[in-house]
Amino acid sequence: MLFHAQVVVHFPPTIDPALQAELIAHEIERGVELMQAGKLVHIWRIVGKTANYSLWKVDSHAELHTLLTSLPLFPYLEIALTPLCEHPVALQAATIER
Amino acid sequence: MLFHAQVVVHFPPTIDPALQAELIAHEIERGVELMQAGKLVHIWRIVGKTANYSLWKVDSHAELHTLLTSLPLFPYLEIALTPLCEHPVALQAATIER
Amino acid sequence: MLFHAQVVVHFPPTIDPALQAELIAHEIERGVELMQAGKLVHIWRIVGKTANYSLWKVDSHAELHTLLTSLPLFPYLEIALTPLCEHPVALQAATIER
Amino acid sequence: MLFHAQVVVHFPPTIDPALQAELIAHEIERGVELMQAGKLVHIWRIVGKTANYSLWKVDSHAELHTLLTSLPLFPYLEIALTPLCEHPVALQAATIER
Amino acid sequence: MLFHAQVVVHFPPTIDPALQAELIAHEIERGVELMQAGKLVHIWRIVGKTANYSLWKVDSHAELHTLLTSLPLFPYLEIALTPLCEHPVALQAATIER
Amino acid sequence: MLFHAQVVVHFPPTIDPALQAELIAHEIERGVELMQAGKLVHIWRIVGKTANYSLWKVDSHAELHTLLTSLPLFPYLEIALTPLCEHPVALQAATIER
Amino acid sequence: MLFHAQVVVHFPPTIDPALQAELIAHEIERGVELMQAGKLVHIWRIVGKTANYSLWKVDSHAELHTLLTSLPLFPYLEIALTPLCEHPVALQAATIER
Amino acid sequence: MLFHAQVVVHFPPTIDPALQAELIAHEIERGVELMQAGKLVHIWRIVGKTANYSLWKVDSHAELHTLLTSLPLFPYLEIALTPLCEHPVALQAATIER
Amino acid sequence: MLFHAQVVVHFPPTIDPALQAELIAHEIERGVELMQAGKLVHIWRIVGKTANYSLWKVDSHAELHTLLTSLPLFPYLEIALTPLCEHPVALQAATIER
Amino acid sequence: MLFHAQVVVHFPPTIDPALQAELIAHEIERGVELMQAGKLVHIWRIVGKTANYSLWKVDSHAELHTLLTSLPLFPYLEIALTPLCEHPVALQAATIER
Repeated sequence: MLFHAQVVVHFPPTIDPALQAELIAHEIERGVELMQAGKLVHIWRIVGKTANYSLWKVDSHAELHTLLTSLPLFPYLEIALTPLCEHPVALQAATIER
Repeated sequence: MLFHAQVVVHFPPTIDPALQAELIAHEIERGVELMQAGKLVHIWRIVGKTANYSLWKVDSHAELHTLLTSLPLFPYLEIALTPLCEHPVALQAATIER
Repeated sequence: MLFHAQVVVHFPPTIDPALQAELIAHEIERGVELMQAGKLVHIWRIVGKTANYSLWKVDSHAELHTLLTSLPLFPYLEIALTPLCEHPVALQAATIER
Repeated sequence: MLFHAQVVVHFPPTIDPALQAELIAHEIERGVELMQAGKLVHIWRIVGKTANYSLWKVDSHAELHTLLTSLPLFPYLEIALTPLCEHPVALQAATIER
Repeated sequence: MLFHAQVVVHFPPTIDPALQAELIAHEIERGVELMQAGKLVHIWRIVGKTANYSLWKVDSHAELHTLLTSLPLFPYLEIALTPLCEHPVALQAATIER
Repeated sequence: MLFHAQVVVHFPPTIDPALQAELIAHEIERGVELMQAGKLVHIWRIVGKTANYSLWKVDSHAELHTLLTSLPLFPYLEIALTPLCEHPVALQAATIER
Repeated sequence: MLFHAQVVVHFPPTIDPALQAELIAHEIERGVELMQAGKLVHIWRIVGKTANYSLWKVDSHAELHTLLTSLPLFPYLEIALTPLCEHPVALQAATIER
Repeated sequence: MLFHAQVVVHFPPTIDPALQAELIAHEIERGVELMQAGKLVHIWRIVGKTANYSLWKVDSHAELHTLLTSLPLFPYLEIALTPLCEHPVALQAATIER
Repeated sequence: MLFHAQVVVHFPPTIDPALQAELIAHEIERGVELMQAGKLVHIWRIVGKTANYSLWKVDSHAELHTLLTSLPLFPYLEIALTPLCEHPVALQAATIER
Repeated sequence: MLFHAQVVVHFPPTIDPALQAELIAHEIERGVELMQAGKLVHIWRIVGKTANYSLWKVDSHAELHTLLTSLPLFPYLEIALTPLCEHPVALQAATIER
């Protein structure tokens, strides 16, 4: 099942810059792993913000919660999830293409 | 350039059901055309709502405005656009895959 | 998978009272069917409002969308969905009870 | 009488991780006690958030206030309460089942 | 148990003035009945608005829902309920007075 | 003249617990004084929150400002005031009772 | 006692233009009367809006409610009231001037 | 040209009380100067808040920005400006008075 | 003096399409006149919306109010004005260019 | 392609004043560079705020993201971007001028 996530990163003003850089490096590494595992299916950066829109394909809600809370930046993330399903436009376009 | 759109449909309570059905049919037809043209690159239905998240790839802002206002349902749409760019996670994952 | 729904009913001021009564009767009938089918697992009325909190157990997002849009009052509903998973408190309490 | 609670945990960025872990352990312990006492009747985790939806069955408002303020995490909780009553759909479904 | 209610009246612009006057007269009549029955314990008009703050003392949530939905103006009311309990300041002041 | 106040207490996460306890004790003491003086005519605790609804009867706006800013917790309070007047329901009920 | 009012006029799109013009003419007439009576002490138009900021000097909340609800446009007004008192800057400046 | 300002003071919880008292004293002094110069034409305290409504008469936007940023409390102020013009009610009342 | 305007057009769903087209044609005509007169100095369409951002250069607030209320679409416009002044970046860049 | 940016600066209350002054000086320097490069085409200060409205002309979303994140104040900026296109009023006025 597919979820849309709006993810905004809020770093506290007092964060140590070295820690911040390390967390970001780990976050990217973990993101790449999740993409290769087919769990994180799309991710785009929102221009001018430390934020992204991403698409997640998971087998259960428990799995999604486990994946999101495993992110190194999780304590700094504000995540808004929206359940998605297939749109008739995409279904018809896919039918024609075949 | 890539845009994320959150699109919510607001039908007035007084709309004629036949007109509404006709507009929806034309909207889907137009959506399929735009997908085949490569302008509308993704579209997902938001569960429980007459709303979608979609991704648009256009050459200019003028083109995007023309495409959106050409939608048969445009007078009933509330559209929120967000400019997107590539995310380092997606870039690295793509590099590894090749 | 389990979803929490906050459902608010907005009747337009111009609705015909007979139609409104009929729609409400069908809505309740449909709700009872969905409870018996094990899809709607809980529903509570919010005091002082034409609104409810409900819990839905579905196999897929497509199924949830189909069920919600099948409700006779769907055109008048404002639905906010939240994906849920098991809470450690409930898991531990359940373990002790057994 | 039955209350719906939306509970969001806000830890200050400066909290000591050991204290935080200890508070969470006590919170879960206290939650299990309240479930066994029949006061906390349901609790679900909200996916991707340090938050829950819970259902409370209490004899008075004073009792509910005492229970909520007895939670080890109370100073960090943002709690929104909604009074609930039985929904005709649940009442009818229960009648049929018997 | 005691509830605080913020009640705002929203008349649609198309309402018939005679019907509106009649509904208001019935609303006041019903309010007086509920005060005499000890269910509505306080009611104040909010200056400059068609709105009130009121205090309700009821035996159950079901009773409160029944009372509120029995109001002649219910379809036009936006009601926000807040559960109340005794405040230590009021408790101590009451002790001293005796 | 009568005012409704919604008062929410926001303690900073860094506050010294001893200072906090002392401020709360003084706040209650001051509240009792104001009730005995007939200035604070009602106060109820909002269940699940460090907040109250209160009713104030004062001779002038200057007096109300002086009283509120004299509260030991004033620097931590978010206060929303609403001017009230008598409601026809309360007036009629009072007439009947006599 | 002095109140600040933010007043926004919301005409329904279906209002008869002749009625609207008549109501506005009466509103201005009534406003002039209230200024001459010393009740409405200041009124300014908000640029680009059908709205004003105004200052009201009244003897009681009941009087203010009566005055505001006597306005010909009252059914179309959204009024936000704020109680004011003297500011030390104005008090000191007034002392110097004398 | 005339501007309405809503000014709210937000002191950080960590501010040194001596510095705060000194800043407030300077703020009042500066306010008195601006009133005497005819730039700050009205100022009222909002009851129960560290906030004011004020009216400013300036020759240009640059002058208004310079005056507001010259306030000793400027780093702690949240300022909302609204351009004002004369209201027909005030104009007619002024004509009659002459 | 310079103002930034965010202008959103809200057509009621019941508007006659011929009237709407006529109003839009007059609005554009009037806008061109105001640009030629140097009052409307910039105007951009917001992509995907019936809305614009515009910059206005006027001699007084009264003039700005008169110009905005002279727009054929004024009854359907939601206008948010922000006073602007020169930014040091623009001033320095202009100095270098000369 | 053209973007409108609303940029608000939020300095944490604990920032070192020397660092703040240095960052502002670098921000202005960088802004002048970006104007000279034709990327930042307009910038206005919002009166009474540490905020600006600015217009950006870029070749791609990636370029815009790179430019905005290159700003010395970026960690303190809240940026809201809106894609713009040409307005018929500006197009017609430009045609006439030629």
